[in-house]
Amino acid sequence: MDFKGSHIVSVEQFARQDIGTIFSVAERMEPYAQRRKVTRVLEGAVEGNLFFEPSTRTRVSFAAAFNRLGGSVSSTTGFQFSSMAKGESVYDTARVMAGYCDVLVMRHPVEGSIQELADAIHVPVINGGDGPGEHPTQALLDLYTVQKETGRDLSALDGLKIAMVGDLRYGRTVHSLTKLLSLFDDVTFVFIAPDELRMPTRISSKLRERGAVVHETEDLAGGLSDVDVVYVTRIQQERFTAPEDADKYRGFYSINRAMYEKHCRPGTVLMHPLPRDSRPSADELSSDLNGHPELAIFRQADNGVPIRMALFALVLGVEDQLEETERDVNWYVPKRLGTQDTLDFGKLPTHNE
Amino acid sequence: MDFKGSHIVSVEQFARQDIGTIFSVAERMEPYAQRRKVTRVLEGAVEGNLFFEPSTRTRVSFAAAFNRLGGSVSSTTGFQFSSMAKGESVYDTARVMAGYCDVLVMRHPVEGSIQELADAIHVPVINGGDGPGEHPTQALLDLYTVQKETGRDLSALDGLKIAMVGDLRYGRTVHSLTKLLSLFDDVTFVFIAPDELRMPTRISSKLRERGAVVHETEDLAGGLSDVDVVYVTRIQQERFTAPEDADKYRGFYSINRAMYEKHCRPGTVLMHPLPRDSRPSADELSSDLNGHPELAIFRQADNGVPIRMALFALVLGVEDQLEETERDVNWYVPKRLGTQDTLDFGKLPTHNE
Amino acid sequence: MDFKGSHIVSVEQFARQDIGTIFSVAERMEPYAQRRKVTRVLEGAVEGNLFFEPSTRTRVSFAAAFNRLGGSVSSTTGFQFSSMAKGESVYDTARVMAGYCDVLVMRHPVEGSIQELADAIHVPVINGGDGPGEHPTQALLDLYTVQKETGRDLSALDGLKIAMVGDLRYGRTVHSLTKLLSLFDDVTFVFIAPDELRMPTRISSKLRERGAVVHETEDLAGGLSDVDVVYVTRIQQERFTAPEDADKYRGFYSINRAMYEKHCRPGTVLMHPLPRDSRPSADELSSDLNGHPELAIFRQADNGVPIRMALFALVLGVEDQLEETERDVNWYVPKRLGTQDTLDFGKLPTHNE
Repeated sequence: MDFKGSHIVSVEQFARQDIGTIFSVAERMEPYAQRRKVTRVLEGAVEGNLFFEPSTRTRVSFAAAFNRLGGSVSSTTGFQFSSMAKGESVYDTARVMAGYCDVLVMRHPVEGSIQELADAIHVPVINGGDGPGEHPTQALLDLYTVQKETGRDLSALDGLKIAMVGDLRYGRTVHSLTKLLSLFDDVTFVFIAPDELRMPTRISSKLRERGAVVHETEDLAGGLSDVDVVYVTRIQQERFTAPEDADKYRGFYSINRAMYEKHCRPGTVLMHPLPRDSRPSADELSSDLNGHPELAIFRQADNGVPIRMALFALVLGVEDQLEETERDVNWYVPKRLGTQDTLDFGKLPTHNE
Repeated sequence: MDFKGSHIVSVEQFARQDIGTIFSVAERMEPYAQRRKVTRVLEGAVEGNLFFEPSTRTRVSFAAAFNRLGGSVSSTTGFQFSSMAKGESVYDTARVMAGYCDVLVMRHPVEGSIQELADAIHVPVINGGDGPGEHPTQALLDLYTVQKETGRDLSALDGLKIAMVGDLRYGRTVHSLTKLLSLFDDVTFVFIAPDELRMPTRISSKLRERGAVVHETEDLAGGLSDVDVVYVTRIQQERFTAPEDADKYRGFYSINRAMYEKHCRPGTVLMHPLPRDSRPSADELSSDLNGHPELAIFRQADNGVPIRMALFALVLGVEDQLEETERDVNWYVPKRLGTQDTLDFGKLPTHNE
Repeated sequence: MDFKGSHIVSVEQFARQDIGTIFSVAERMEPYAQRRKVTRVLEGAVEGNLFFEPSTRTRVSFAAAFNRLGGSVSSTTGFQFSSMAKGESVYDTARVMAGYCDVLVMRHPVEGSIQELADAIHVPVINGGDGPGEHPTQALLDLYTVQKETGRDLSALDGLKIAMVGDLRYGRTVHSLTKLLSLFDDVTFVFIAPDELRMPTRISSKLRERGAVVHETEDLAGGLSDVDVVYVTRIQQERFTAPEDADKYRGFYSINRAMYEKHCRPGTVLMHPLPRDSRPSADELSSDLNGHPELAIFRQADNGVPIRMALFALVLGVEDQLEETERDVNWYVPKRLGTQDTLDFGKLPTHNE
């Protein structure tokens, strides 16, 4: 696809080579995202951050990405556009915002609402999550993390084995990530979920159609034993029709360090889209793993910045101008971001392969 | 008036030549507002955006304007200053904010509150709307739109014929625009409203005193037939004492393409302060006009940016330094902002006069 | 202490020489804070402003400070991290934000919460107030104001006499300021409070242990008569178990111009952390003093900017690079910020000593 001027609404719009394009730009963003270099390539540009659903981390991640490119951000975090309450159409809202901003990021609880916004304007729109629908930048940063953490290049994602654990029924991020992974050959999926929270059949069938191997099991220990990546999810209480039903499944699976060491192959990468539920009743991915070098969950979150920078640069067509305003970072950046980090910021565990 | 260091609180403060000053600076802002050029003239300056009433579009328009000049914006969108709830005077609030910001924009539901803020400080204050009171930047961008869309220069506004349609009783924007237009000679106003929502007599009397021709009618078709501009308004439900009364008038007038083509002279400019109420029960300016080149409503909204940039530049006294930091825009800007736009961004319909 | 990479969580962490370091950097920030010069030393850096408790002025003050250093700010003003509601640990929240931002400022209603955040990450965290706990930047700007307004240098704070008036029981700012002042020798404290709102014994005992002279009285007139500084506080209604009890004490002490002139020595500096309660029932520091040159309360608020700039510069290690990107301010800055200011912005009353 031609990224310049495009909307980023769904993972469905990407072909395998588009992923390659995004990731190669994201890699060139790493020095800025990791605060070794500064670029000001988008100085003067304005991003509109329209968050109709609260999501501090996603909003700040987008804003930081745009700021790290030199641009300015205007954020809206209210739950409703007052003007929409006054009967304004999505077309009008979108067209007016397009007059102010060079790119819009929107998060909205209603599936399909971002597509409607994008259909109204030629100013690029990026989907920051539309309820049970899509969250394409999360899927991209997940896949980027898989690639980096397993020490593969994109073509080497063929043959990947990944386990997905937990609420596979309502977990938007696993749905999108499986779609992206289905662009690659010979991927093996191990879906570990209680029967009621199984991966929807429409998704697992489609994966099989595309040639993937799909195993489904309720058995956590067995499912973990022969994969490259374990992707753990939170019980999506907010998507349950009866929220108290979520209690039944919270705590159903819980991976801690002992279990990891007993059942996983050395080097198995642990991922989670965050937030993880650390209440004792849930604890799907125990904090006793925090010091483990293969716990990739924070590096995964960090990867949101270079991925979102790459998308901004691509849709605004500045990906080849980054170096023109480049200089070294002149302020203090800690070697490790978290006090329990075992690796320096931007570094990956070494695999003996 | 001397703009440097001035507050912009009411349209009443402008003489005819002041309008000329603002519009000539706004014109010089067009290359930045239309994202052909970047200026960084206010790099280092800080705007405080104090929005005690929700208004995403007005807030983002001011912020984008300040960002496009190179400055930074701090926005407050809460409904109440916690400190005001603790018994703080407006003087104290204003004086403290003046210590942080170079210019303040405030929107507040109480008429007169912006004047009170402005009276407290020498840091310039711009009124972003004070309830049923004033919204001077809207009136300025409206007049700027009238001038540009009718292909006139300011002196040629003498003799203009304008129809105003809908809720002329509560519509703050039409009140302010009539005041600005009364600075010009031989203006003809056609006020089209149901009897209960007529233009207040104090306003129409004053217009007549100043030499304007004022027609009042309930007949939409007749009122549209011989004017240069039709300015349509939304029923201001939120200003009605009994909001259900608003239902009686919503949908009372509805202008669509068929009606426009039947009753308006070719070239008649269609304006609306937005949001327009697109619910079938209202639809005061139908979306079937979206593809019409004389539908100026989105260009009108776009004009908010150069007008607000001009006011910031004037009150901060930098209007003659714009070019010093100027460079070309290096990112993608679509030719047309909306998918239903019929004209390129920044272009106007051609009139055969 | 070594500031680079440090958290600023409590006034307890400062030794006397640290105060000297902060104030000497703050002094070098004055030209930027007073808008005579621009520096862009932190261009490209991102501050995260996490305000879980509403505090417009503190938030805008931090944001303005970071912007005046050239950096960008992402603000969160919601009352809850949605992710914390989903069971996320403070560690996870902190670590994720550290991936986006170069420095975090947090305000939170729960005492100790900022320390918990700081314990999780190596990215510097600055306490913007944790409920009844600490508000170290307020204490620092208060002490900086004492120093500047009394025309002393830091070593000359030895021997200072200060009266503190009002709600000394719940007033967080007086607790922190006394701790900072106890670093100096021979300081005399006059605590003027109704018996029920006395300075907690643990604080006054500790002051005496450290060699300070402590007088406690309910008599306002007598307490004011022989001090260098009078620090007035508001009744902290929101900290009372039974808020209606606050009414009993509101208005208990009220200092106006007549009282000041009758009881205070010429040159006695009047301070207040703001907001002051200007309702007739409270009026602890009357607005009839607004024109008085020794009313330092707004200069005190203004001092928040250079102090916060100094802390940002120190924890990010750029305090020696300020001048590299320095230039003159090119926009209009009023000589006096408030219409009732008697002194030019940045100027101090002259003392005949």
